[in-house]
Amino acid sequence: MTEPLAPGATIGILGGGQLGRMLSVAAARLGFRTCIFEPGGDCPASHVANNHFRSEYEDADALRDFAAAADVITYEFENIPTSALDILEPLKPVRPGRNALRVSQDRLVEKAFLTDLGLATAPFAAVDDAVDLAQSIDEIGLPAILKTRRFGYDGKGQARLRAPGDAEGALAAMQGASAIYEGFIEFSHEVSVIAARGLGGDVACFDPGENVHEGGILRTTTVPARLGAAQRADAVLLAAKILNKLDYVGVMGVELFVTPGGLIVNEIAPRVHNSGHWTQNGCAVDQFEQHIRAVAGWPLADGARHSNVVMENLIGDDMDRVPALAREGNAALHLYGKAEVKPGRKMGHVNRVTGPA
Amino acid sequence: MTEPLAPGATIGILGGGQLGRMLSVAAARLGFRTCIFEPGGDCPASHVANNHFRSEYEDADALRDFAAAADVITYEFENIPTSALDILEPLKPVRPGRNALRVSQDRLVEKAFLTDLGLATAPFAAVDDAVDLAQSIDEIGLPAILKTRRFGYDGKGQARLRAPGDAEGALAAMQGASAIYEGFIEFSHEVSVIAARGLGGDVACFDPGENVHEGGILRTTTVPARLGAAQRADAVLLAAKILNKLDYVGVMGVELFVTPGGLIVNEIAPRVHNSGHWTQNGCAVDQFEQHIRAVAGWPLADGARHSNVVMENLIGDDMDRVPALAREGNAALHLYGKAEVKPGRKMGHVNRVTGPA
Repeated sequence: MTEPLAPGATIGILGGGQLGRMLSVAAARLGFRTCIFEPGGDCPASHVANNHFRSEYEDADALRDFAAAADVITYEFENIPTSALDILEPLKPVRPGRNALRVSQDRLVEKAFLTDLGLATAPFAAVDDAVDLAQSIDEIGLPAILKTRRFGYDGKGQARLRAPGDAEGALAAMQGASAIYEGFIEFSHEVSVIAARGLGGDVACFDPGENVHEGGILRTTTVPARLGAAQRADAVLLAAKILNKLDYVGVMGVELFVTPGGLIVNEIAPRVHNSGHWTQNGCAVDQFEQHIRAVAGWPLADGARHSNVVMENLIGDDMDRVPALAREGNAALHLYGKAEVKPGRKMGHVNRVTGPA
Repeated sequence: MTEPLAPGATIGILGGGQLGRMLSVAAARLGFRTCIFEPGGDCPASHVANNHFRSEYEDADALRDFAAAADVITYEFENIPTSALDILEPLKPVRPGRNALRVSQDRLVEKAFLTDLGLATAPFAAVDDAVDLAQSIDEIGLPAILKTRRFGYDGKGQARLRAPGDAEGALAAMQGASAIYEGFIEFSHEVSVIAARGLGGDVACFDPGENVHEGGILRTTTVPARLGAAQRADAVLLAAKILNKLDYVGVMGVELFVTPGGLIVNEIAPRVHNSGHWTQNGCAVDQFEQHIRAVAGWPLADGARHSNVVMENLIGDDMDRVPALAREGNAALHLYGKAEVKPGRKMGHVNRVTGPA
């Protein structure tokens, strides 16, 4: 497919969480239909989609049915099994493409990819056993973080090391999984760039947002971020470099540490990103629609921001604050329709417009 | 129900067109589920709703099933049959209430209601036959418009009279339906107020928009409207008067003619309104969410506008312009997912943010 998809076509979305939900709404806004592939029942995305294929990612027949129903396939999370891609790719375009998934599914491959591009990252080393770990502590130093190479999110599968004595516990926390040792970076704050690349290679970035995490989970994103003009340009240029190298199609979240020596890439996510939720109330076209535009072969929006926004995640018991938030009078609530509140679970977010851009 | 509905509750919406579609998305954003009652298949609202009850409004069993599935019932159009209300009202709260429907379903009742409130309207008279019509022409004068009392929208069921000789043709155009004769008003422009009233009686209005019609169909709404400070206050006060008198719950569209002698009420619509679509890109909380907040017993947003907006309807073949609109870079498209393009059919709209408010 090189022609743009016409309204009425169907966007297939792998994953039925809140990102799939907001992608589905954005697709509908452009007149597209949506089908969701998600093993779980009553998932957030299914509430606002035309169809829900409720099957496991190992179910080849269900994947084929899903591909038959969709005109293009995208996803809300990076841990799509390769076996599923093997089935889907010959049938319909999968965007962003496999290379982006290959790189971002493995923290070690990702760091190597970024380093090869000439971008700064934290010092890192592969850790498969206690010998590797001892050597990493020796070469890269402490403090540091040990992370599983795969399937980590929201601070899961991570262990901090402050002293050599932490090594054994950190390694045990990996539960036998291959890991990556990352040296500690002195940074003043973290920002992220929500970047998009179209089917024709055009790139558009939203202005960087400044992120605050708590317990490994994003708490707030504030736009504009504290960045000088040169840093702002750097952030956008390095994001474009990553997207171009991957021949990427869609929206990507690029997390950056701001240090006195320049910007350091923390991690990339080949999908719409929590730190881009502010765009829903700060831009005429938000990150979700931008992603749908890209995967549908449409022109990208320019990413211009009309308003400054502070986005705050509503996590677990934060749902108890919803009545008070509703009384604020002008806070934009975005709840995900999740039936069960769990500690650490992202239940929604609120965007507060703080003034004109 | 006097307690606010908690997220997870279900909003039932009568009517599955574009207004139901955008109400459904707004409800989802607050964590609600939605069910749509609509006789037509593949309707715009069903694409983004949890459930679609596809039945006729005369199907009492289906209406009861719909009421059983919903925690509160609202609607996207004013021509709900009274027989359907008779079934639904004892089962679940219907908001806005019956009185608003009674008044707005009949242009003559509506004009009498407004006049009783002390609000200015066009001079009017009931017309059931040629004698009534001749008398109206004599008393109110020409030019004028003859309109069916019920079931008119987008300029349908209307005939203009410029000279006495137009009387016969205008009456024939009513096809035997009871009609209302409305004297012509010299006005400089038309504005509308999108007003909301909560369950506790609080009222919040969006800033008035200025409307341009073509062929009886809304073409554009521009915010802010050309209005002096006193006119702006008048517009909001008279809207509040209407809502309070009806003990209204929900969003109402109030169309006003701006004349040298003051504001004249053209018509009211007991629902979200095409001239309020600009709020989607001009406010943190749009008219659709405001309506859902009201019918769910939530606090209203304050209606503050962060940006100025021009809304343009995409009607019929305007859909051919979608690729060009997408290339504009920063125009917010809202397409309705209607499969078939027909002349005069509202297919979508585009909001252009023109600057900070």
